[in-house]
Amino acid sequence: MKAHEMSFRVRYAETDQMGVVYHANYLVWMEMGRVEYCRAQGVRYRDVEECEGLALAVAQVECRYRAPARYDDEVTVKTWIETANRKVVTFCYELHEGERLLATGMTRHVWVGRDFRPASLPAKYYDAFGITGRM
Amino acid sequence: MKAHEMSFRVRYAETDQMGVVYHANYLVWMEMGRVEYCRAQGVRYRDVEECEGLALAVAQVECRYRAPARYDDEVTVKTWIETANRKVVTFCYELHEGERLLATGMTRHVWVGRDFRPASLPAKYYDAFGITGRM
Amino acid sequence: MKAHEMSFRVRYAETDQMGVVYHANYLVWMEMGRVEYCRAQGVRYRDVEECEGLALAVAQVECRYRAPARYDDEVTVKTWIETANRKVVTFCYELHEGERLLATGMTRHVWVGRDFRPASLPAKYYDAFGITGRM
Amino acid sequence: MKAHEMSFRVRYAETDQMGVVYHANYLVWMEMGRVEYCRAQGVRYRDVEECEGLALAVAQVECRYRAPARYDDEVTVKTWIETANRKVVTFCYELHEGERLLATGMTRHVWVGRDFRPASLPAKYYDAFGITGRM
Repeated sequence: MKAHEMSFRVRYAETDQMGVVYHANYLVWMEMGRVEYCRAQGVRYRDVEECEGLALAVAQVECRYRAPARYDDEVTVKTWIETANRKVVTFCYELHEGERLLATGMTRHVWVGRDFRPASLPAKYYDAFGITGRM
Repeated sequence: MKAHEMSFRVRYAETDQMGVVYHANYLVWMEMGRVEYCRAQGVRYRDVEECEGLALAVAQVECRYRAPARYDDEVTVKTWIETANRKVVTFCYELHEGERLLATGMTRHVWVGRDFRPASLPAKYYDAFGITGRM
Repeated sequence: MKAHEMSFRVRYAETDQMGVVYHANYLVWMEMGRVEYCRAQGVRYRDVEECEGLALAVAQVECRYRAPARYDDEVTVKTWIETANRKVVTFCYELHEGERLLATGMTRHVWVGRDFRPASLPAKYYDAFGITGRM
Repeated sequence: MKAHEMSFRVRYAETDQMGVVYHANYLVWMEMGRVEYCRAQGVRYRDVEECEGLALAVAQVECRYRAPARYDDEVTVKTWIETANRKVVTFCYELHEGERLLATGMTRHVWVGRDFRPASLPAKYYDAFGITGRM
């Protein structure tokens, strides 16, 4: 699976009084990265939720902060799938501002139904998530 | 109807790089004020959503900012109902830090069902919202 | 002064449990609109803060909500200056999703220095903000 | 060092369209936990920033999500210091709603000056952060 990149500008609302981006916003950016990753694979995540009744619940997040992002910076999120089966997906991320590495991160997700119980991704989405065999 | 007051501390996440609270957070604080206003009247807003299938959709907001709130300030939100009938409720707010007036605000709401169409508040809630007659 | 338009996608983080965008986020979007408005006029707001030591403090906001924005919608913010002098600027906004009007809004700002005291916009910025005469 | 607990109610703004709290907000709650941890040790973090010109920059975060938090839940954050020296502090967290474990987390911080370069915590704060010897 190859990585997908998307970019956006840092909002004023995302800064804090240290004069840099508040750290929790990096998780929001990672989510934007994986939504666009899915779209690039032909899957609109909104449709998965609406049509399949499935959601990618967040089970774990990790982020290492390397350099601060600042207001009005153009940030690029590079997203790829580290591992995936029909139950669990692990995304990895690199965040850059130009050549400057801002952060690296990982999020692990489980597919859940509307009742929040674990569910399985239907086979028609296997390609998009790079699921190759029986798992 | 008398006013209700509740207090909380400003979070670091709520500041921006001006070194003060980002202005959109005042709307979040007003929402906290009206939830606690309702609770003080014996109505848990969460139950209204869950049991009645009703929600107070926001139709209009106004806020005048008088003085900046800062990180770790203890802010008090004073909330009261300006007018209410079974379709529309108007809340007013004053935000203080100690004696210092931070902001005044207003939010107007319409009751809606799960389909976002206008709905009517059941009569058992009239007292809590200060609805006295037929409207 | 003519209006400026910019678009973006609604983030999952911006929704709430009603299944639509949480209302305070519209203020964040208006801020994005005015930053891009300024950029289109040749003024990078970040530079004004950094180089001039000036900031556009928010003195008043109003927003009327017409229709809910939803996750993954592409929202367009149309921004223009209603009135401006060297002390005070009033921006107006229309938010759309396709042909659908989501909200209209207004924000009033005063220029302040790093000490939060009122300041005057330097003359070199008059054109960008549509300030024509002596005020 | 013993743990410190603080509680608060989940805000409507913190939910997302899955009907539960958006995952990035847990990082905001952890920050509230460590601010109150410090206060319980006699250190007001705001004063450290203002008087010492120091800040606890976030270098790393981890969070494992066990059960969803919901609107109006009363959440308790239990915070303790795992390790600390005059350069680096590692906080750990447990988040509960009643008996229900919501999440566990860790944040690692480095003390930085106003220039964002690494700094050392003054000796007068060693006790509060459980720093015992020479490091």
